[in-house]
Amino acid sequence: MNIFDTLIEQINKKQSPICIGLDPRLKQIPKFLVEKAVKEHGNTPKAVAEAFKDFSIQIIDKTHDLVPAVKPQFAFWEVYGADGIKALQETIAYAKSKGLIVIADAKRQDIGSTSDAYATSILGSSPLPDGTSTPIFDCDIVTIGPYLGSDSIDSFIKVCKEKNKGVFVLVRTSNPSAKDFQDQKVITGTNTEDLFKIVAEKVIEWGKDSIGEKGFSSVGAVVGATYPEEAKELRKLMPNTFFLVPGYGAQGGGGKDTVPNFNGEGIGAIVNSSRGIIFAYEEGKEEQFADAARNATLEMKKDILEALKI
Amino acid sequence: MNIFDTLIEQINKKQSPICIGLDPRLKQIPKFLVEKAVKEHGNTPKAVAEAFKDFSIQIIDKTHDLVPAVKPQFAFWEVYGADGIKALQETIAYAKSKGLIVIADAKRQDIGSTSDAYATSILGSSPLPDGTSTPIFDCDIVTIGPYLGSDSIDSFIKVCKEKNKGVFVLVRTSNPSAKDFQDQKVITGTNTEDLFKIVAEKVIEWGKDSIGEKGFSSVGAVVGATYPEEAKELRKLMPNTFFLVPGYGAQGGGGKDTVPNFNGEGIGAIVNSSRGIIFAYEEGKEEQFADAARNATLEMKKDILEALKI
Repeated sequence: MNIFDTLIEQINKKQSPICIGLDPRLKQIPKFLVEKAVKEHGNTPKAVAEAFKDFSIQIIDKTHDLVPAVKPQFAFWEVYGADGIKALQETIAYAKSKGLIVIADAKRQDIGSTSDAYATSILGSSPLPDGTSTPIFDCDIVTIGPYLGSDSIDSFIKVCKEKNKGVFVLVRTSNPSAKDFQDQKVITGTNTEDLFKIVAEKVIEWGKDSIGEKGFSSVGAVVGATYPEEAKELRKLMPNTFFLVPGYGAQGGGGKDTVPNFNGEGIGAIVNSSRGIIFAYEEGKEEQFADAARNATLEMKKDILEALKI
Repeated sequence: MNIFDTLIEQINKKQSPICIGLDPRLKQIPKFLVEKAVKEHGNTPKAVAEAFKDFSIQIIDKTHDLVPAVKPQFAFWEVYGADGIKALQETIAYAKSKGLIVIADAKRQDIGSTSDAYATSILGSSPLPDGTSTPIFDCDIVTIGPYLGSDSIDSFIKVCKEKNKGVFVLVRTSNPSAKDFQDQKVITGTNTEDLFKIVAEKVIEWGKDSIGEKGFSSVGAVVGATYPEEAKELRKLMPNTFFLVPGYGAQGGGGKDTVPNFNGEGIGAIVNSSRGIIFAYEEGKEEQFADAARNATLEMKKDILEALKI
C-alpha cells in the first residue's frame, strides 16, 4: 500500500476524484469572519490568519464527507508569516482529524540538505533537542518542482518511502506562459520532444521502485487541465503515474476537459478546484459560504462523474 | 537606483562581494545555544527556532561590518513550522537593522494570484483588515524558479518595481543532477542551445525595463560556482544581469572558480557561503562560533579579492 492506494480507496469510497483547494484571501473570505477575528486580535496578521483558519475549518466541516482530500496552497498562508503558518498547521491537523488526505501545494525545489529540510518539514518529522522528532506540517503529499533534477527529488523520495507519503512533480502547468520552457523542443537521439515530456520520463524513472497495489507509484505529476490533448498523451506515456489536475473551474477547464487525465478504468487522477468551491458564496449570502461550498462541490462531482461515464 | 545599485554600493564600501548563508541546522549549531533554549522552552520546535535565531544574530553581530548581505535559506527555518518562521522573521528584521541586504533563498514558483501571494509575503506588504498593509518578511531580493514561465515571474517584477526590490531566477544550479534538465539541448531555429541558456535569455528579457545606474536589471540570476566555463559564457551573454553564486566552499567551488561570474570591472556578482562560514567553529571551540564565522568570512573575502586581481 502506498499513499496513492489510500487516495484511490478514498476516491472510490466517496465516489469523488476531487480535492478542494484551501486558498483563502482576505479580499474574498466573508467579511463577518474577518470582523470576528479583528475583535479578538485587532488589525493584525494574526487576525487574518485566524479568519483564514475559521473559514477553512467551516468549509472542511461541510465538505469532508464529499471529498477524499484538500489541497492548501502554502503561498496564501505565508502572506501572514508565522501567524499564517500557525493557522495553516492547525488547519492541516483539523483536515487530517476528519480523515482527509492533505496535499501541500508548496512547489518546493532545492538541493541536498536544503531539499532534505523541505521534505522533513512538509512530509516528515523534524529533529528535536532530545534526539526524538516531531511532525510539523505532516502532509501526505507535496507538490515539487523539477528544474534542479534528480538530486532535488531524492530527499522527498526517501521520506515518501519511510513515511508512506507522496509527491506530485510539476510536469505540465495550466498557465499561458507554461509554454516558455515546457514546450521547448528538446533533441533526444534522432527525434525531438517537448521538454515537459522529458520531465515526464524522469518522473516515471523516479517512481519505478514505489509502485503500489493499484498500479501507481508514489511519485505523481501535476498536469494542467487546460491542455486535454496533452493530458491524453501523458496518460498514455505514464500509466503508473497519478495526476493532480489543477485548472478546473476558475482556471478555465470543465469536467469534460479532465477526462483524458483518467485511465480506461476511470482512475489515476484527482481534480482540484479552489476558488470555484471556496468562494462559491460570492453569488449569494456570505453567512452561507460553507453551504455554497458544499453545493459547488456536489456540482463539480456530478460534472466530473458524468464526464467520466461518456 | 535599483536594488542592485544599492548592493553594488555596499559591496564596494565593504570591499566584499560576499554573502553569508543563514542555514542553521540542529545537528550543527553549538550545543550550549540549544541547551539554553531548551531551559526556557523545553524540548520543543520553539526551542530549536529560538536557538537558530540566537545563533544567527550572534553571527550577524560579528560579521555585518564585513559583508553587504545575508541569505537565509527558508527551508531550514520551515523545518520548525510557525516557530521557525517567527524566528526567521525576527532574524531578517535584525539583519536589516544592521544595514544588511537580505536575500530570501526561497526558490518559490507559482502562477497568477498564488505567485502574487509569494511576492507579497517575501518582498511586499500584506493586506490588513482595515485596508492598510504591513510588510511580513520584507526581504530585499528573493530566489525564484523559472519552470512556469513569464506569468510566474510577472508578480515578482511588479513588486520589484513598486518596492525597489529584486529577484534571482534559477538559471544554472551547482548540483550534479542540474544536468537532468538544464543541459537538455533545445532547438532554436537552425541551432541548438542548452536549456539553461534559453532560461538565461528569458531572464534578460524580463529585466530589460529595470536596468539601474550601474547597468544591472532588477532580475538577477543564480549561477552555480561549480561550472566556471559556463559562468564565463553566461557573463558574456548577460552583461546586465547580476549573479548570485552559490557553491563556494562546502559545495566545491573556490575563489578562482567564482571569477568568471564577475565582469571586466570586477562587479556583477555576489558569492554565497553558508556552512563554510557559519559552521567554521566545528574545528575549534563551540563558544567561539561567531569569531570562527568572522575569521572564515575574512578568509573567504581575501580568497575572492585575490582571485579577482589576477
